[in-house]
Amino acid sequence: MKIESVDFFYLAMPDVTTAADGSQDALVVRVTAGGHVGWGECEAAPLPSIAAFVCPMSHGACRPVGASVLGETLDGPDDIRRIAATVAYNSMDLLQAPHTWSGIEMALWDVLGRARGMPAWKLLGYERAYPKVPYASVLFGATPQQTLERAKGIRANGFRAAKFGWAPFGESLSSDIAHLDAAREGLGPDGIVLIDAGQIFGEDVDAAAARLDAMERNRVTFFEEPFHGHAYAAYAGLRDRMKTVVSAGGEAAHNRYMAEHLIDFGKVGYIQIDCGRIGGLWPAKQVADYAVQRGVTYINHTFTSNLALSASMQPFAGLEKHTICEFPTGLKQLAVDLTLDHIAPDANGEIHVPDAPGLGIAVNPEALVRYRVDVEIRVGGQPVFVTPKP
Amino acid sequence: MKIESVDFFYLAMPDVTTAADGSQDALVVRVTAGGHVGWGECEAAPLPSIAAFVCPMSHGACRPVGASVLGETLDGPDDIRRIAATVAYNSMDLLQAPHTWSGIEMALWDVLGRARGMPAWKLLGYERAYPKVPYASVLFGATPQQTLERAKGIRANGFRAAKFGWAPFGESLSSDIAHLDAAREGLGPDGIVLIDAGQIFGEDVDAAAARLDAMERNRVTFFEEPFHGHAYAAYAGLRDRMKTVVSAGGEAAHNRYMAEHLIDFGKVGYIQIDCGRIGGLWPAKQVADYAVQRGVTYINHTFTSNLALSASMQPFAGLEKHTICEFPTGLKQLAVDLTLDHIAPDANGEIHVPDAPGLGIAVNPEALVRYRVDVEIRVGGQPVFVTPKP
Repeated sequence: MKIESVDFFYLAMPDVTTAADGSQDALVVRVTAGGHVGWGECEAAPLPSIAAFVCPMSHGACRPVGASVLGETLDGPDDIRRIAATVAYNSMDLLQAPHTWSGIEMALWDVLGRARGMPAWKLLGYERAYPKVPYASVLFGATPQQTLERAKGIRANGFRAAKFGWAPFGESLSSDIAHLDAAREGLGPDGIVLIDAGQIFGEDVDAAAARLDAMERNRVTFFEEPFHGHAYAAYAGLRDRMKTVVSAGGEAAHNRYMAEHLIDFGKVGYIQIDCGRIGGLWPAKQVADYAVQRGVTYINHTFTSNLALSASMQPFAGLEKHTICEFPTGLKQLAVDLTLDHIAPDANGEIHVPDAPGLGIAVNPEALVRYRVDVEIRVGGQPVFVTPKP
Repeated sequence: MKIESVDFFYLAMPDVTTAADGSQDALVVRVTAGGHVGWGECEAAPLPSIAAFVCPMSHGACRPVGASVLGETLDGPDDIRRIAATVAYNSMDLLQAPHTWSGIEMALWDVLGRARGMPAWKLLGYERAYPKVPYASVLFGATPQQTLERAKGIRANGFRAAKFGWAPFGESLSSDIAHLDAAREGLGPDGIVLIDAGQIFGEDVDAAAARLDAMERNRVTFFEEPFHGHAYAAYAGLRDRMKTVVSAGGEAAHNRYMAEHLIDFGKVGYIQIDCGRIGGLWPAKQVADYAVQRGVTYINHTFTSNLALSASMQPFAGLEKHTICEFPTGLKQLAVDLTLDHIAPDANGEIHVPDAPGLGIAVNPEALVRYRVDVEIRVGGQPVFVTPKP
């Protein structure tokens, strides 16, 4: 097969707010090759990611992503790895390139799986897929009382695990403790409580460590992104002060090295990979293999549609003991409507990566129209990008 | 002062080739505040960097760079650091943001220096500036004979130091040895020979190590980027096999942590910072301080105009013992014409960071017209960017 076309669809809700809610817009990628159609999703910042695909070349090590993809052969996983290496080398100085490539790479596995009638996780080398325990991923309430109610609601909806994140966490120690107590109370004694600080402590180890007592008393499983994603010394410093809780991070990794370094130098206990940023499924699978070697738990990072969720489950589908899975709840309607297939908990409260070919998720063409944000980019008077037809 | 406007000028040569020559295009930034005008330059990929300034918000941690800059107060260095922290937090999920911010940050120091009548290096905390030994930064010849002639030409032009880089280096061991011998022969016995492999060895330590004998016999000072910029384990592995030569890297660092990690975990002997990528002058100065602490030599990475060269000299202007300085020669005419002021070696073959206020380099308004690449970006039918008037 040859890669014939790569199309980008920028979608957004009518109102996008400053909430840390990644489901307010989307950049959906459609790839065609050999009569097959595959879909992927780039995480965040649609316009710069489109620009990275179509921009004029700056020099040999700063070429647009499109130049390394269009017209390439796609006959098997080795081709995806080969194209990935070409993008990494030829777009070395184009910082946004990994985010653009991530959605394309997902779509290539989708095409390949559909062409072979195999789910992507089998193409990645797994013999079978294991169910995952989804955790509801939500923002903290504005008050501890709201967090309590949110936690009770999650439990009532059948979730045993939940992650609470972002503001107002970090605003004051007493407030944070009240939110932590509320999260545990609302989820019940056997609930799995996860906390995401959204990098609020920068690299201030003491500030983050001040929350550890309340976390450990509330049996928090992991403490996500207390610090800037690159502040390995701060992560390692906090690790030395933890008794039962461990830290988690890695969502911003835009290549596998960054995730491996967070394991080796930041000493995280959970490595969280967003396939929409790290370069798609293959580097994520490499990180999963590395995590197994190092005794660290792999977990997906997903805050967008079920297309991204399926993609994010593939790289660790076959890891039986890596059971927790981020499952975004409270998605904006755009992210719900984007797919015709949805991944939902079964009677045991577990979720399953699709068995269907590729990523196993059909994209809803009506959503591409309903939430469409038209983009037109002209360089030197010539159009280099115009929103394609759905 | 308030930051009143931030304008981007995309410039390019009529023909842009796949040569690893970063001077074929430019993204120039003009900032106005309090009646003062400052200039900066983002390194590489103009279109995605413009997009990162103007794109619609995706969510609270993925806002356009412009939202954190326009209208902000600029009364001193603390304001630049404060805005940098805001950009880093509010554009956390926008990968291209550090490259966009880098050119703005430079321009803010330029504005501040012009407002106070002080060079930027004084604002950064240095008492005095020391001369630097410029190395001519060129590409390898296509043949060893061409490399020999290029090296002789550089020596004849008064340079004692030169760096040879990129293809065909890495194509074969025998060819690489011939190029290394040619570089030494052409520069003469007292020349300073530097080699840039342009990441050609990926993470293959053995392949890179096979070149060490010829490097050490030819007294190469540093071996730049043998590997992918994040392959710390490969860097550290090569370090263990080096006797006299040391490795160099860091040009792709887009925050100070990445440079510090290359020092700590990659064990480089020279840390090379591009102010057009790392976030401008301040994070570069922090890396310079860190390098001093760790016994590593700081050096600029610059392959574009003299505006970028002045910016890149500021963060280590006051480090007397960090003497070598990348000095791009063979710049494309666009990069020559972009500035009215030029930095040139003195009778001793040394170069000096400007003493004039700010970055001390006047931009040539005619070049902004002559090399202009018009850009128009429309989102949802509305223009979000149109090339401004010079």
